[in-house]
Amino acid sequence: MSGADRRDADVAIVGAGISGLHAARLLTTAGRDVVVLEGRDRIGGRTVSAPIGDGRQVELGGQFIGPTHRRVAALLRELEIDTFPTYDDGRNLLDFDGSLRDYDGAIPPLGLPGLVGMGIAEWRLNRMARQVSPHQPWAARRAAEWDGTTFGAWLDQHGPGGRARTLLDLLAGTVWGAEPHELNLLQALAYASAAGGLRETAGVKGGMQERRIDGGPAQLCAALAARAGALRLSTPVREIAHRRDDVELRADGLVVRAAHAIVAVPPALVPQIAFEPALPAARDRVLRRLPSGRVTKVVCVYPEPFWRDRGLSGQAVSDGGPVGATFDNSPPDGRPGVLLGFVTGDRAATFATLPEPDRRQLVTAQFARLFGAQAARPEQYLERDWAADPFARGCYFGLAGPGAIGEAGTLLSQPLGRIHWAGAETTVASYGGMDGAVLAGDRVAREVLG
Amino acid sequence: MSGADRRDADVAIVGAGISGLHAARLLTTAGRDVVVLEGRDRIGGRTVSAPIGDGRQVELGGQFIGPTHRRVAALLRELEIDTFPTYDDGRNLLDFDGSLRDYDGAIPPLGLPGLVGMGIAEWRLNRMARQVSPHQPWAARRAAEWDGTTFGAWLDQHGPGGRARTLLDLLAGTVWGAEPHELNLLQALAYASAAGGLRETAGVKGGMQERRIDGGPAQLCAALAARAGALRLSTPVREIAHRRDDVELRADGLVVRAAHAIVAVPPALVPQIAFEPALPAARDRVLRRLPSGRVTKVVCVYPEPFWRDRGLSGQAVSDGGPVGATFDNSPPDGRPGVLLGFVTGDRAATFATLPEPDRRQLVTAQFARLFGAQAARPEQYLERDWAADPFARGCYFGLAGPGAIGEAGTLLSQPLGRIHWAGAETTVASYGGMDGAVLAGDRVAREVLG
Repeated sequence: MSGADRRDADVAIVGAGISGLHAARLLTTAGRDVVVLEGRDRIGGRTVSAPIGDGRQVELGGQFIGPTHRRVAALLRELEIDTFPTYDDGRNLLDFDGSLRDYDGAIPPLGLPGLVGMGIAEWRLNRMARQVSPHQPWAARRAAEWDGTTFGAWLDQHGPGGRARTLLDLLAGTVWGAEPHELNLLQALAYASAAGGLRETAGVKGGMQERRIDGGPAQLCAALAARAGALRLSTPVREIAHRRDDVELRADGLVVRAAHAIVAVPPALVPQIAFEPALPAARDRVLRRLPSGRVTKVVCVYPEPFWRDRGLSGQAVSDGGPVGATFDNSPPDGRPGVLLGFVTGDRAATFATLPEPDRRQLVTAQFARLFGAQAARPEQYLERDWAADPFARGCYFGLAGPGAIGEAGTLLSQPLGRIHWAGAETTVASYGGMDGAVLAGDRVAREVLG
Repeated sequence: MSGADRRDADVAIVGAGISGLHAARLLTTAGRDVVVLEGRDRIGGRTVSAPIGDGRQVELGGQFIGPTHRRVAALLRELEIDTFPTYDDGRNLLDFDGSLRDYDGAIPPLGLPGLVGMGIAEWRLNRMARQVSPHQPWAARRAAEWDGTTFGAWLDQHGPGGRARTLLDLLAGTVWGAEPHELNLLQALAYASAAGGLRETAGVKGGMQERRIDGGPAQLCAALAARAGALRLSTPVREIAHRRDDVELRADGLVVRAAHAIVAVPPALVPQIAFEPALPAARDRVLRRLPSGRVTKVVCVYPEPFWRDRGLSGQAVSDGGPVGATFDNSPPDGRPGVLLGFVTGDRAATFATLPEPDRRQLVTAQFARLFGAQAARPEQYLERDWAADPFARGCYFGLAGPGAIGEAGTLLSQPLGRIHWAGAETTVASYGGMDGAVLAGDRVAREVLG
């Protein structure tokens, strides 16, 4: 570390995602001298936008706001950033086993046995979810049992077969970025409980995909960063020495001594920082049991959202290619037209092994099958593999290993001396989303100021 | 890194456990210039001995060799280090629900319903284990299903209740360092398959605890280190830059440029090393999905093994305190007498929160209840909490997250350019033990020499 710049601050923050930037803004506003150290060459964390011409952008990371996400919605109002409803008019598509059907509203064309199987599974899962408090999932009567098995194992035992099972498998991929057999059942139930039901986890109107941010989360991050104190990009923090009276953060090229540290990175990345003294065993272990899911977002940009003219919503669920689910991700005025696809779980792993032209070809062929020949030739094809990002190592958020929810409890948010912990995974009821990131920023700012 | 010593070598090895030291010895013997970089101030990795006077020692880490562990047995013969049978004469103890019973042989006094339940569960689990190749567990017909659930979830659904369930829960703790709900079912089945059956995983004669090393694994490590090239202790590696023609390892105070690197640390610790370029997403993810179990070994030393005179083997299974299982861990001549206890899983987490005198008091009180009043006052009390060791972060070995076995396949052992991968988790059939560590050392030495 010799040769590195040295600097003092009141608060040093690791990570310039929404949570770290929001905490930095609150603390700067309260008069504190804040330094934010970010490993990447950009702000935004697991949100990012790409320009698509004419001053427009498309979101390649976290983007959706659901009706329960009140805190981030309030922050956006405060910052005078608009939101708008995700496009949700017209008929949805179901593409299973080579058979493409469109349908209205909420009832997918699974056939009568499929609908019955799906209905029973949904009813049972919702009944279980109602027994799980989104604020204290570990306190449910059957928490230990559900924490110790997977969504897939539950489906194997109690779920439907056939197309209803395929639909539930694709739901797990789209909502959690996980294969069903990777997904802690209690975590799925807690998420469904917070969303208001299983269907709401994947839904648009009344669901977790209900609204978007005008200009994307990049607008939010830019507004936060404007009052976030000193920001150092491309400065990954390697070591944090924590003592009774201060902390010292050693990053590439910069050492910061501060009264408080705020760590605002995904849980799986925390053990990469060398703490002196080392993190307590219990906290270290919980952090190691929250690896993130696998998600690659793919985006096709067209001159206009031609599918709308055909009465289609742009929403599809498909087992006929890498993309498991699609949404219309056009700007509010529908210019240009943007289709968004989610490639998740094992599909994302396989997809990542292909050369870029093959990936593009697979996606555009699948989109053409779903939305018509026009979809085969997008003006732009964009993608983001979050598992390949060394500062994310997966998305959307940390997925609990078996038994990890009960083991973690509230540990992830508890201060450790002068180290405070933010990030979307340190909240419970809004776990893993932009709303959770803001709530965590609120909490650490209170801790530091209190 | 300015100010650090710089050095060239043919091979730089990260980690001076059995695997790294064995590889170093093979490569040094073959004429290669080898540097071993070890973070701790000692060699041995997850094996360690403590002196107990008169030149005797007791093992506080990995120590047992089963009948299938042929490779480490051959290496010990080559190095002229003796092994001896774990003490296994006399009656065993079962201490459940406040009731202490002793029994002969293999049939624990569970009562008739308990024996029937245990027998059925064992028969079913063994039948499943026989469908799992210890060399390719991911190839089993039902691999995806078993990989995607837990041992505990299987027991909830198919297993017995009452004392038979308690016995199976304690078996999971003793054998894998895991609560049943934390344990990947396919991993448990593969381990049982390699051991020759469920009972053999926990057994002494014919089982995985059959033999011990005279003088402990410290003898083995010392013999390996004597011809392992240059060894640098207290030198944790922070970064590995890997290029087409060489690798550069940056450790505290030392930078080594070499033709090959061998990484021989537990999988969970690998992502703490900053690789340049970053590890591929698939490998990084698999490494993050193998956090280790939780084990604290506790040892009481007495002038002699007084329990033997009472016809007891020193082996007990107990739900009446922190210790789930005990073994007679005396030196070959029975002087002094040593009782070893395993505190595992949730019990280990709770145990770690207590002050040392309370921990000692709980253990000696439990040992006194099991083996008589003499056990209450040991001459020495020793313990080792492996979860608290920053260079282990748990024991015995990496436990697969849901779906992680199929995802990993043979990935952990595949070279990445000039980086080779050793450690007990990079073998399949002898996964996680000393035998696997030696086999992995063999393999990486072949890779480097080949």
